Amino acid sequence: MGGVIVTNPPKADAKDVDALAGFGVATISEAMGRTGLLGPSIRPVQQGVRVAGTAVTVLGWPGDNLMIHAAVEQCGEGDILVVTTISPCTDGLFGELFATALQHRGVRGVVLNTGIRDTQELRDMGFPGWSRAVSSQGTVKATGGSVNVPIAIDGQVVRPGDVIVADDDGVVVVPRETARESAEKSEAREAKEAATRAAFLEGQLGLDRYGLRETLQRLGVEYKTYEEYAGERP
Amino acid sequence: MGGVIVTNPPKADAKDVDALAGFGVATISEAMGRTGLLGPSIRPVQQGVRVAGTAVTVLGWPGDNLMIHAAVEQCGEGDILVVTTISPCTDGLFGELFATALQHRGVRGVVLNTGIRDTQELRDMGFPGWSRAVSSQGTVKATGGSVNVPIAIDGQVVRPGDVIVADDDGVVVVPRETARESAEKSEAREAKEAATRAAFLEGQLGLDRYGLRETLQRLGVEYKTYEEYAGERP
Amino acid sequence: MGGVIVTNPPKADAKDVDALAGFGVATISEAMGRTGLLGPSIRPVQQGVRVAGTAVTVLGWPGDNLMIHAAVEQCGEGDILVVTTISPCTDGLFGELFATALQHRGVRGVVLNTGIRDTQELRDMGFPGWSRAVSSQGTVKATGGSVNVPIAIDGQVVRPGDVIVADDDGVVVVPRETARESAEKSEAREAKEAATRAAFLEGQLGLDRYGLRETLQRLGVEYKTYEEYAGERP
Amino acid sequence: MGGVIVTNPPKADAKDVDALAGFGVATISEAMGRTGLLGPSIRPVQQGVRVAGTAVTVLGWPGDNLMIHAAVEQCGEGDILVVTTISPCTDGLFGELFATALQHRGVRGVVLNTGIRDTQELRDMGFPGWSRAVSSQGTVKATGGSVNVPIAIDGQVVRPGDVIVADDDGVVVVPRETARESAEKSEAREAKEAATRAAFLEGQLGLDRYGLRETLQRLGVEYKTYEEYAGERP
Amino acid sequence: MGGVIVTNPPKADAKDVDALAGFGVATISEAMGRTGLLGPSIRPVQQGVRVAGTAVTVLGWPGDNLMIHAAVEQCGEGDILVVTTISPCTDGLFGELFATALQHRGVRGVVLNTGIRDTQELRDMGFPGWSRAVSSQGTVKATGGSVNVPIAIDGQVVRPGDVIVADDDGVVVVPRETARESAEKSEAREAKEAATRAAFLEGQLGLDRYGLRETLQRLGVEYKTYEEYAGERP
Amino acid sequence: MGGVIVTNPPKADAKDVDALAGFGVATISEAMGRTGLLGPSIRPVQQGVRVAGTAVTVLGWPGDNLMIHAAVEQCGEGDILVVTTISPCTDGLFGELFATALQHRGVRGVVLNTGIRDTQELRDMGFPGWSRAVSSQGTVKATGGSVNVPIAIDGQVVRPGDVIVADDDGVVVVPRETARESAEKSEAREAKEAATRAAFLEGQLGLDRYGLRETLQRLGVEYKTYEEYAGERP
Repeated sequence: MGGVIVTNPPKADAKDVDALAGFGVATISEAMGRTGLLGPSIRPVQQGVRVAGTAVTVLGWPGDNLMIHAAVEQCGEGDILVVTTISPCTDGLFGELFATALQHRGVRGVVLNTGIRDTQELRDMGFPGWSRAVSSQGTVKATGGSVNVPIAIDGQVVRPGDVIVADDDGVVVVPRETARESAEKSEAREAKEAATRAAFLEGQLGLDRYGLRETLQRLGVEYKTYEEYAGERP
Repeated sequence: MGGVIVTNPPKADAKDVDALAGFGVATISEAMGRTGLLGPSIRPVQQGVRVAGTAVTVLGWPGDNLMIHAAVEQCGEGDILVVTTISPCTDGLFGELFATALQHRGVRGVVLNTGIRDTQELRDMGFPGWSRAVSSQGTVKATGGSVNVPIAIDGQVVRPGDVIVADDDGVVVVPRETARESAEKSEAREAKEAATRAAFLEGQLGLDRYGLRETLQRLGVEYKTYEEYAGERP
Repeated sequence: MGGVIVTNPPKADAKDVDALAGFGVATISEAMGRTGLLGPSIRPVQQGVRVAGTAVTVLGWPGDNLMIHAAVEQCGEGDILVVTTISPCTDGLFGELFATALQHRGVRGVVLNTGIRDTQELRDMGFPGWSRAVSSQGTVKATGGSVNVPIAIDGQVVRPGDVIVADDDGVVVVPRETARESAEKSEAREAKEAATRAAFLEGQLGLDRYGLRETLQRLGVEYKTYEEYAGERP
Repeated sequence: MGGVIVTNPPKADAKDVDALAGFGVATISEAMGRTGLLGPSIRPVQQGVRVAGTAVTVLGWPGDNLMIHAAVEQCGEGDILVVTTISPCTDGLFGELFATALQHRGVRGVVLNTGIRDTQELRDMGFPGWSRAVSSQGTVKATGGSVNVPIAIDGQVVRPGDVIVADDDGVVVVPRETARESAEKSEAREAKEAATRAAFLEGQLGLDRYGLRETLQRLGVEYKTYEEYAGERP
Repeated sequence: MGGVIVTNPPKADAKDVDALAGFGVATISEAMGRTGLLGPSIRPVQQGVRVAGTAVTVLGWPGDNLMIHAAVEQCGEGDILVVTTISPCTDGLFGELFATALQHRGVRGVVLNTGIRDTQELRDMGFPGWSRAVSSQGTVKATGGSVNVPIAIDGQVVRPGDVIVADDDGVVVVPRETARESAEKSEAREAKEAATRAAFLEGQLGLDRYGLRETLQRLGVEYKTYEEYAGERP
Repeated sequence: MGGVIVTNPPKADAKDVDALAGFGVATISEAMGRTGLLGPSIRPVQQGVRVAGTAVTVLGWPGDNLMIHAAVEQCGEGDILVVTTISPCTDGLFGELFATALQHRGVRGVVLNTGIRDTQELRDMGFPGWSRAVSSQGTVKATGGSVNVPIAIDGQVVRPGDVIVADDDGVVVVPRETARESAEKSEAREAKEAATRAAFLEGQLGLDRYGLRETLQRLGVEYKTYEEYAGERP
């Protein structure tokens, strides 16, 4: 199986990446119309860390990390490595040695649609990772694949140069062309949420703040006392 | 789709809730004849926290948190919000803004048969959560459902006003009518466990303490030396 | 159902166990030709702990911990209890009372192909556990099984007396007959990895260190600029 | 562990059961406001069979079929046996011998939240089954449980005497008190669907029939030509 | 949530679709370098049916089939409807009424990354379906989404107008721009497989036909008699 | 990664294999003390077929079928090929070409702890298969492994020459040394089941036939009328 290693793809502007780094994954996804999320099976191996960077993508073979080696050379300052395989794989394709090489190059973290290993070492060295599994299962370097081509994880497409933001809630992908717009919308959303938070702390209800009492009524949701309800149940 | 919001259901007595708060989930379930547990897929987003409170229940639509907004108004001091959806859903139906509103009202935690988000913020603000998934996936507010009706999660029925106890081991539901009895049985069980612990620390075996040598014999379980066993194996 | 409790099986040499304790699970598995791992679903209930010991094996019935009681008597200094059931089971077959008894006997930890409970207590008392699930679901003591017979978890055979090493990355099994050899190979691998780490920190690439550029070429993986690649895509 | 066997619970009226037998599972669930379904993991072991009957419920222990033996005596003409366990279980708790005994008593089928076995024999003898798994794993008869108490499967409560309807699409539960009402609503729904089917066959669109063009507009869903859309995408 | 309905996207040439219809999913994927497959969780609801057509894509909300209604209008002769949701969903978003409407318009089948229902009716009417689940769970029509935008299922991108081929082995997507090339390569592959089949029927081994004895030797795989092997095992 | 191909392992006696072929998988497993089963995730791709044969085992790499090619040469009259990989894999490692080669050699079927493909062709040619998944995903031939070494699937060890029996209920492994004994016990069990069947058809209850009324009483299971039960429930 052949494949292609694409060099020097365009990347999102560093200023936009830094701006997005200021927001949580949930906020950014909401700001993008509730899109952009990798699924809930991609979980962090550390707690309390948020990173933002530009994607270097890898499409490899299950049980094989050859293309991650090829990808290291394409990684640089401010990047985040994003790895998937052609079919489902939980093997530990990535560990401390790769993290050492990437950290040396200024890479900010790794997102794996497979397994990860050396998790304690990764936490100790401060190189954050998100993955579908934790597994010590080692790999071979026998089959080709691609670097810096568009990949899809859990129904979400990641293109090289897109912005990746990852925290305890998961991973979101922001297309590089709309990174600035997404950062601005995230800021607006955060402001709106701050106002909502303040209102909630003063006791306002979402029902009133969002006009949901009308929604409930329109949908035919009824209020009943416990006695009314209990009386009519089988 | 219609639905119903039941107001002022009877709740377990606060004294019984407090009494149950003194026991772990495993102890309470054992005291209830090994019943009452939500399944092992409902996991905490924090570590080392135990809460007990009275259930306010929500039955909503997948990908929709409208009924959680309706439920907030029904929540008060000492409650725990318990949320499920009509079909499987991992979306992040609950996050920091809801937690802010609930904490303001004296609610003690949330149990979600769906996803949760803003997990770092929830830990920071000390509002504990248990959920089936962690997901930033946002929701709509478009479809009706019910509040304070009986719901079932993982084969376990939760009724409004029942006692919820949750810790690192999971979540247990205690029917409000038997809350006192369950607390008393939990206390008895804990005393019994303390005696067992002391005996184990002096070297007694469960085989002897529980009379299990007879059980093994009755069941036909044989003791063999390694040499006997190895000699007769294929 | 009958069963057998095998007494005094031969065990791996303590020196070899101690030697293996010096290496991570991933290193040992790699040194053994990428074998020996229990699958990625067996996860620790604590963080940052590594243990090594000799296996005492249990084959029990789902929802039943009778044979763990039988196994406690067979456990001693330096052992690790390894438990599976005849069919899939997530119940909490093991908790703090068992841990108390085992810790008293010098046992170093437990690996369960089922659920575990009392996780906070286990962390507090420093008795480490690895399991497929966390569950408070209690058990009965009604059905026979076996102790110290070969068992298989996730496609990996564990025999009594084999060495178990477990850390944040999972669990590896080293056959007792090859424990020394595996320790030596692990040491060699660690030395090799140290050299690689140093090289990576000086900027060398895996592509060059492992001669992978030739592999890529042989496999037909091509390098293209982004412009070349974008130009030929649909 | 004790338990209770409840004798002679009230059952849904046979006429209502027969009426419900005329409708598919999806139709009945829709008629009940999209409720009543056991989840999608409960699948038939045969194709093209629909049955309706009154529930005899079993709550047993994983890996143990003692309570199914107890339940057989409680089963009679027109019943459907519905079995769950206190915790997840895939073992083959039910096979051809049970089916022989039940068929002899006029029982119409079985629904298992566990495994089933002898599937070819069940098909040959015309005794239909729905289950979470197919498994030959045999069981013991060692632990108590209950018969004809309310049970919950996948978030759906089943009470003894409720109507069970099962077909290729799954299993629906109709509370006995509302069986007639549900049959009538199902009939109404089927009539409505027949009209819709006729309209669709003449080319009418759901968009028009259900007034959904306004919904799309209100929600801000826009129509664009491919050229417009392609032109503004990154 | 807004969204977009894209009208009149370009489609693969009908001749190429017909050519691809002559090959199995596995053959086409192999011919495309082992790419293009939706994952193994997407299964047919019938047996022995193969279809090929051009994709009309739908991105909807979980538990909501509004956008399928919108998509029907965009479907025509030779199309296959391909549906996913913004987050995981097993509900029965598609059934016999939709199939009636689509069959009337010349649509050849449906692929759902969700649940499907009315499976017996679909088989009876000869409208084939592939889905992640079978579920009677009904839906609402309350939330917007998109039609004829690129979607991703299981890591595979599907664009409107791409060729979908589906059979008992699963579903493959062929980009419309390379449909002809893929058909030609599939034909070449089938010819090659026919030659291999003939050789195998004459007793030739893959080891010899593909030159794999050298591969085994290069990889260090050794041949041993059972006696040699048994003698050196622990 | 090296590996070993073991030639000419001893095999179970053909007479014993034929004897076992007369019994269902469930019967044989019961006769062996409810052991020997591969788990419920290994499912047939056809219906109504039972085969028995001697195991030729393969341990390969995920996404790689090199070792199946090596195994073909080791397969002969009356064998069944049993394949697993070093870590979880759903790829279609086996299809019609392999089946052609194996059928030519007198092999009776295949059991895969991975994916299978060409399922319609396999049914057409009468070569039966059991697998964890159906997948068209193709493979490479790049990494070594072993043939005719002991492997483990779902906690069950399979050794070369063991008897494999597979039918609609799943797959059971009978150690070659105890094949005759297992056949005899299966025959005894079938006779016993025939007597039970006859008794059940005359209306006897398992409760009486197996003396379970005493068991229920000993376990404290009580009989209550519905009125008694309903009266004491919350």
